[in-house]
Amino acid sequence: MMQDAPTMTKRHAIGVFDSGVGGLTVVRALRRALPGEDIIYLGDTARVPYGSKSPRTVEKYSLACQRFLLDRDVKLVLIACNTASATALPALAAASPVPVIGAVEPGAQSALAATTNGHIGVIGTLATVRSNAYATAINARDPDARLTALACPLFVPLAEEGWTDDEIAALVARRYLTQLFERDRAIDTLVLGCTHYPLLRDVLARVASELAARDVAVVDSASAMAETAKDALGSGANRRAQPGRLDCFATDTSRLDELAPRFLGEPLTGFELVDL
Amino acid sequence: MMQDAPTMTKRHAIGVFDSGVGGLTVVRALRRALPGEDIIYLGDTARVPYGSKSPRTVEKYSLACQRFLLDRDVKLVLIACNTASATALPALAAASPVPVIGAVEPGAQSALAATTNGHIGVIGTLATVRSNAYATAINARDPDARLTALACPLFVPLAEEGWTDDEIAALVARRYLTQLFERDRAIDTLVLGCTHYPLLRDVLARVASELAARDVAVVDSASAMAETAKDALGSGANRRAQPGRLDCFATDTSRLDELAPRFLGEPLTGFELVDL
Repeated sequence: MMQDAPTMTKRHAIGVFDSGVGGLTVVRALRRALPGEDIIYLGDTARVPYGSKSPRTVEKYSLACQRFLLDRDVKLVLIACNTASATALPALAAASPVPVIGAVEPGAQSALAATTNGHIGVIGTLATVRSNAYATAINARDPDARLTALACPLFVPLAEEGWTDDEIAALVARRYLTQLFERDRAIDTLVLGCTHYPLLRDVLARVASELAARDVAVVDSASAMAETAKDALGSGANRRAQPGRLDCFATDTSRLDELAPRFLGEPLTGFELVDL
Repeated sequence: MMQDAPTMTKRHAIGVFDSGVGGLTVVRALRRALPGEDIIYLGDTARVPYGSKSPRTVEKYSLACQRFLLDRDVKLVLIACNTASATALPALAAASPVPVIGAVEPGAQSALAATTNGHIGVIGTLATVRSNAYATAINARDPDARLTALACPLFVPLAEEGWTDDEIAALVARRYLTQLFERDRAIDTLVLGCTHYPLLRDVLARVASELAARDVAVVDSASAMAETAKDALGSGANRRAQPGRLDCFATDTSRLDELAPRFLGEPLTGFELVDL
C-alpha cells in the first residue's frame, strides 16, 4: 500500500505550455470544459516569440517545455502554441509517455465544421504559415477544402499593447486581410492560428466580413482543444465538485502581471520563475 | 618567434552583438568609420527580442553572446543592443578582458550635443525604458537635462514588416509620440534607443516635429558608437587599404536573408548558425 501511494498521486494534472502567455486562452477554455482538473501551465516567456524562429529552434525549446511538464507527472500535454504544434508535434509526441494534443488538429476540425463552401483562411505566425500544418490537417479530412494562409506579425504586439479595437487595429487588420482575400475571394471561415489573436476577434470578424461582403465565421483552437482533452481523458476526467488548482510557471516574469489576466480572463495568483 | 605567432593573430577583429539583426546598423556605421577593421557579428536571433524581458534574462543571454565573441579573440566588444547595454553593461564589462562599448553612453552624448534646451526624449524597448540607463548617462554629464522615456513595442515589428513610412507607421508614431510630448512639451531632441528604429527615422522625425510645432533633432547610437570604437582603438586601428572582413553568426536563421540587408545597407554573404 505504501509503495502504491506515489503512483496514486502521479499523473494528476493536465500540462499546458506556450511560448508566452497567449496559451492562457486555452487554459480558460479548459477550465470551462473540465473545471475539476488541476492544470500546470508553463509560458516560455524568456524565449517568446517562437513564431519568427526556425523549426529547429522551436522544436528544441518545445521539447524543453514538455520535459518540464512531464517531470511534474502530468497525465496529458496540451501544446497551446500554434507554432510549436505546427512544427514540433511529431517530436513532442515521440518524446512523451502521455498523450499530446496540439492546436492545429482541433483548429482544423473547427474550421471544417464552420465552413459551408470549403474555402478557409488561416492567419498565424510566420513559422505556422511556413509549416503548412493547417493545410495538411484540413486536407487530410477534406481533400477538396482550399486553405489560404497568411503570416500577420503585427497582431501579437497589438494584442499585447491592448490596441485591439481601434483605428490602428482596424487598419492593420484591413491590410493583412486584404492580402488574404486577394488570394481567395471565396473564404467564408477564418482560423485564428495564434493564441494571441482571440483578443482581436471583434475587429478581425468585422473587417473580414466587410472585405468578403458577407458573414465570415471566425474560429480558434482553444475550445476545440479543451473538447479534445475531455475526450482524451474520457472516464478518467476528474469530476470532483471543487475547482482544480492552476499552477503557473514562466521562464521570465517581465510584464506577466499585466498581460496574463487579459488572456486567462480571471485573476491569477502569480507565476513561479523557472530556468529551462 | 613561432610561439609569438598565435598572439600576433589574436585579438584582431571587433566583436559586435545584438539580440537580432538590428545591430547591423552599428556594423554599417563601423564600416564607414573604420573600413580596414575585421568585424565579427553575432545576432541572438533564436532569443530575440530582449526588450520585453527581465534584466536577469537579458544579462544571462548577453553574457553568452559576449563569451562567443571573446572565444574568437576580438579586441573590442560593441553591444549594439540598447536593451543589453542598458541592463547588462556592468556585468559584461566585468566579464571581459577587452574594452566593452555599450549603446547608451554614445547615444546620450549625441543627444546632449544635439539639444539646445536640455529637454530630451528617448524611445526604446520596455527593458531599456525601465532601466533608466539613458537618464543616468545624460544626467551624469548634465544634471539639468530633463529626460522623458517611452517604450514603443510596435516599432520593431513595423520595421521588420517594412511598413516604415505609410499610414499605419504614421498613426503608430503619432500615438506613441503624443504620449511622449504630453509628458514634456519642450522636447527638442529624440533619441532612437533601439537599433530597429533608424528604419523609421523619417516618419518619426516628421511626426515629432509636427507635434512639437518645431524641428526636433533625431539621433541614434550607431554613429556615436563607431566614433567611440575609433577612439578606443586609437593608434591600434587597422589602417590597411583593403576593406575588412565581416563574419556574421546567428542563433537562428529564420528571415535573416530578408531582414539583414535592410539594416546593413549592403549585401551579405550569409550567416553561420551557432548554438549558444
